[in-house]
Amino acid sequence: MTNEPGRRPDKATGRRRDEDRTEAILKAAADLLLEVGFDRIRTQDVAERAGAGKGAIYRRWATKEALLAEAIRNMPRANPPVTDNPELDLRELVNDRCLSAERQPDLVPGLISAMRSDPGIEEAVKAGYNLDYVRSAIARMIGPDHPHLDLLTDVTQAIPLLRAAFIPETLNAETMTDEITSLIQTIAKQSPE
Amino acid sequence: MTNEPGRRPDKATGRRRDEDRTEAILKAAADLLLEVGFDRIRTQDVAERAGAGKGAIYRRWATKEALLAEAIRNMPRANPPVTDNPELDLRELVNDRCLSAERQPDLVPGLISAMRSDPGIEEAVKAGYNLDYVRSAIARMIGPDHPHLDLLTDVTQAIPLLRAAFIPETLNAETMTDEITSLIQTIAKQSPE
Repeated sequence: MTNEPGRRPDKATGRRRDEDRTEAILKAAADLLLEVGFDRIRTQDVAERAGAGKGAIYRRWATKEALLAEAIRNMPRANPPVTDNPELDLRELVNDRCLSAERQPDLVPGLISAMRSDPGIEEAVKAGYNLDYVRSAIARMIGPDHPHLDLLTDVTQAIPLLRAAFIPETLNAETMTDEITSLIQTIAKQSPE
Repeated sequence: MTNEPGRRPDKATGRRRDEDRTEAILKAAADLLLEVGFDRIRTQDVAERAGAGKGAIYRRWATKEALLAEAIRNMPRANPPVTDNPELDLRELVNDRCLSAERQPDLVPGLISAMRSDPGIEEAVKAGYNLDYVRSAIARMIGPDHPHLDLLTDVTQAIPLLRAAFIPETLNAETMTDEITSLIQTIAKQSPE
């Protein structure tokens, strides 16, 4: 971190730099969490990635769990594709989730464990849990008032989780994506009840 | 445990009594696990329910986890209803699962945590994981070769799990049962592709 030329490190820029550092640490924690999961994330590695010291982290958060909870609260919302092809947009969304489960089957089960052992993480995850972007994508195919909309929205997340946790031999991203999108297409083809 | 009258405690009956005791402990462990979950099950309580001492347990299993793993392997298979009304049979199955999730939202997330911290439990759960009884019930409604059969089978378990872990405000057994069974009915009403 270099000073901008010609600016004194006055109170305002000091505060600003402190905020930047906080943001950098939170982003590093969030990125690393998604890469290595709850079991393997270490404060030392977060510090290195953020270009900070461990001291800078522990001055801000009392525990690793507190840091992770804030990193989760701070995670950017998903920014799903919206083209003029709702079927392909949905497929891309579903495929992203299924690929993530295939590549890191441990991530969501690890998140569940972490939520159970740390109330701060539990609260952060539940507060931020929001599937509106999936719901919108499915609504574009079956209509916003369809009786199966809630369930189909949850199916896109629930199936990769169940298979990662209990039936890993069925955790194939391509197959799962086909199964889920073709179920939604079947519903879309029907006239609404 | 009293001796049967007129029988000497010879080697054969001694072995038999030992097996009975083992079975009683495994059944007590399985029942208690389903009642209180992984976090709160204690060897002492298993011993009491089985009418045994803790010593009798630790002579058989080195750790609580080893006992629980065998109790899981030993659990009886689900014995689902098969009447001449497939729709009601399926509804009963789905409702049982959803009620269990509503009453004990922590049970399956707790199982996931336990699997992650103990390889013996993980192996026992994965080896015994079998949804054939659900698949059969759904197959009676949509046919055994239906392209959505695998997915719909998993949906019955995946949805209660996802909602218990992340969106407890949607964990209503009646609503979930209606959502899941009506999706399957919608598929059943269609002509197969």
